Formats: sequence, C-alpha cells, structure tokens
Amino acid sequence: MARKTGSHSEITGPKIRAEAQRLFARHGFAAVSMRQIAAAVGVQAGALYLYTSDKEALLFDLLKTHMDELIAAWRAEAPAGAEPLAALEAFVRFHIRFNLERAEVVFLSYMELRNLSEENFAVIEGLRKTYETELEQILMAGQAAGVFLIPDTKLATMAIIAMLTGVNTWYREGGRLSRATVADIYWDMVRKAVGA
Amino acid sequence: MARKTGSHSEITGPKIRAEAQRLFARHGFAAVSMRQIAAAVGVQAGALYLYTSDKEALLFDLLKTHMDELIAAWRAEAPAGAEPLAALEAFVRFHIRFNLERAEVVFLSYMELRNLSEENFAVIEGLRKTYETELEQILMAGQAAGVFLIPDTKLATMAIIAMLTGVNTWYREGGRLSRATVADIYWDMVRKAVGA
Repeated sequence: MARKTGSHSEITGPKIRAEAQRLFARHGFAAVSMRQIAAAVGVQAGALYLYTSDKEALLFDLLKTHMDELIAAWRAEAPAGAEPLAALEAFVRFHIRFNLERAEVVFLSYMELRNLSEENFAVIEGLRKTYETELEQILMAGQAAGVFLIPDTKLATMAIIAMLTGVNTWYREGGRLSRATVADIYWDMVRKAVGA
Repeated sequence: MARKTGSHSEITGPKIRAEAQRLFARHGFAAVSMRQIAAAVGVQAGALYLYTSDKEALLFDLLKTHMDELIAAWRAEAPAGAEPLAALEAFVRFHIRFNLERAEVVFLSYMELRNLSEENFAVIEGLRKTYETELEQILMAGQAAGVFLIPDTKLATMAIIAMLTGVNTWYREGGRLSRATVADIYWDMVRKAVGA
C-alpha cells in the first residue's frame, strides 16, 4: 500500500505540501485537519497517509525542507573567500530576498514550532543554529580582522536575523519601496550596527 | 443575565484572560474552545458569555489591553524633553524589558492577528502604528538635529522594533547574560545602526 516513490507521489507530494502550507499559515496547524488538506488536494483523506504518517510529520517536512533549502541556497550564493564586509552584505541581501519569497513557510517556522515533537523540534533547532552560525562566522572573521566592532557576536547574529526577517511582517509588493531599495537600506543599518 | 461589572466579573475577568492567553499561546487560538477556557477557569462554558461575547472578542481584548498598556507604559517612562539619543536609549531599554515580561501576549500579538475580525484588526494595527510613531518621532528628531544618520526613518523604526522584539525568541532566564547586559548590547547596536 505505502508507496512513497513513483508517479503517484511525484504528482501529489508537492501539491500536498503546498496545500498543507497554505492551510496551516491561514488557519493555524492545530485548526487544520488531514481531511481538510485532502479535500484541498482533491484526494481522499486515506490517500494522504500514503505520503505522510501524520499531520505533525507533514509540518516537520515543510519546516525541514525550508531550512535545508535556506542553508543550501546561502552556501551556493555565499561569495567564496570574500572579505567579511562583502560576505555580510551578501548575507543581508540573500536573507531578505529568500525570506520574502517564502513568507508563508517563514511564518510557520516561527509560529508552529510548538507543534513539533521534541525530536523534530531538535532537528529544526539544529538547522537554525547551523544557519545562524554561517552569519556568526562572518561576524567573528570581521571582528578578528578589526573590520567590525561588535560587543557580542552571538547577540549580533540574533539581532541581525530578527531585523532582516522582520521585513516579512511589513513589506508589501507594490508599496513605497522596491525590494532592492529595502535591501540597500537594511544593509546600511546592518553595516553601521556592526561598526563597519 | 449579562453583567459585565461588579464583583463577579472582577474576580473571573482577569482569570479568564489569563487562562485564555495561556491556552491560546500554547495551542493556538483556533484549537482552543470556549469550553476549554471555561474548564481552566473552573466555571461553566455559559458563564464565560457573561464576560465576553465570543472567543474572538476575548482575543481582541487580550491584544488591545496589551497594546494599551505598552503605549501607556512607554509614555509614562519616556524621558520628558530628552535629547534624541537619550530618548532612543530609553526606548530600547523599555521595549526589551516590557516585552520580555509579557512573552505570551507578545507571541499572540504576532501570531493571531489573522484571527481578528477586520474591524478589530484595524484597531490593533492602529495602536501598533501609534507605538511605532513614538519611536519614529525620536528618530526624526535625531535626524533633524543631525545626531542620527538614517536613510529612512520608517524602515529604521521597523528594523529596530523587530530587532528588539526578537530578544523574546532566544532569551532564557538564567542564561549566559542578564537582561541588563542584553539591553546594554542591543543599545550599542541600535546606537550604531542609526549612525550615532
């Protein structure tokens, strides 16, 4: 019965994830039933269980995929051997762009952590720490090189990520500023904040 | 039947709000029933309706009370006639402290906006704007006085608030740093970010 590969799952898998993400973001994880997700996908509830063991596994899959993609995308884009200042600028622009493009799952990543099992929560926390470490290493390199002046690189990491992710809460397409201008302005603030 | 004032509501009102806040923060607004809230308070579900018209009104009450208290507390604490730099420092320290003390309702304020009616959402948005304007006016005053160097005071307002509120997501009592030290470090970063 359980087939996780092949044409069936290739077609419905992405659709299940897209509908689950949309419904979780709109109504909250706890308020959405597997039946609702199945109805949105256009399959019977039973068919969902060919793809996922339960609703929590579906949430975990969404959050883990997001973190994996975030880390992979940054590592692909991080300028190799760049000076700390150039690396920090690349990080700021990358983070704003990547998160704005994925507003729903970013929202879920902050809001629905409480609904993960302890084990799955630890996995997401670990991936988040991995991503934060990418930024912290840039800050530490800049600090060591005397380019940055940061009282605490761990706190600066958290502060910068919160500031950048915050763009998602207010940015509206077609508003006063383009994404590029927003990134320019945030880069100016981050550069100054680290004393560069 | 409906009595909103008097000894009955004075005793159960705060308890209802405390239990609703705790349950909403733990399970999500949509997953919590009026029956569950009543059980946590120790009354019959019907008794809740003496206090509130429905669950959304209860959520709105929590979020509005929080915003009212935030604005009133800041206005009481804001140093009268202070220089922009001193006013900004006071704001940074106030915001971190006030939000850390109210982590549950701050979390709800970001998460559960989607569950407010359009009318109630507009009220909360308005109060949030009022609070943001308090900070923006400090930034504009500093900019006008040539003390700050900020490319966009609106974006700087959003960036600073996101950075400061972000402390709630990682700060743990009894961790590496005291609240006072965290506030010192964040103030250092904010001061630099605005070019002061």
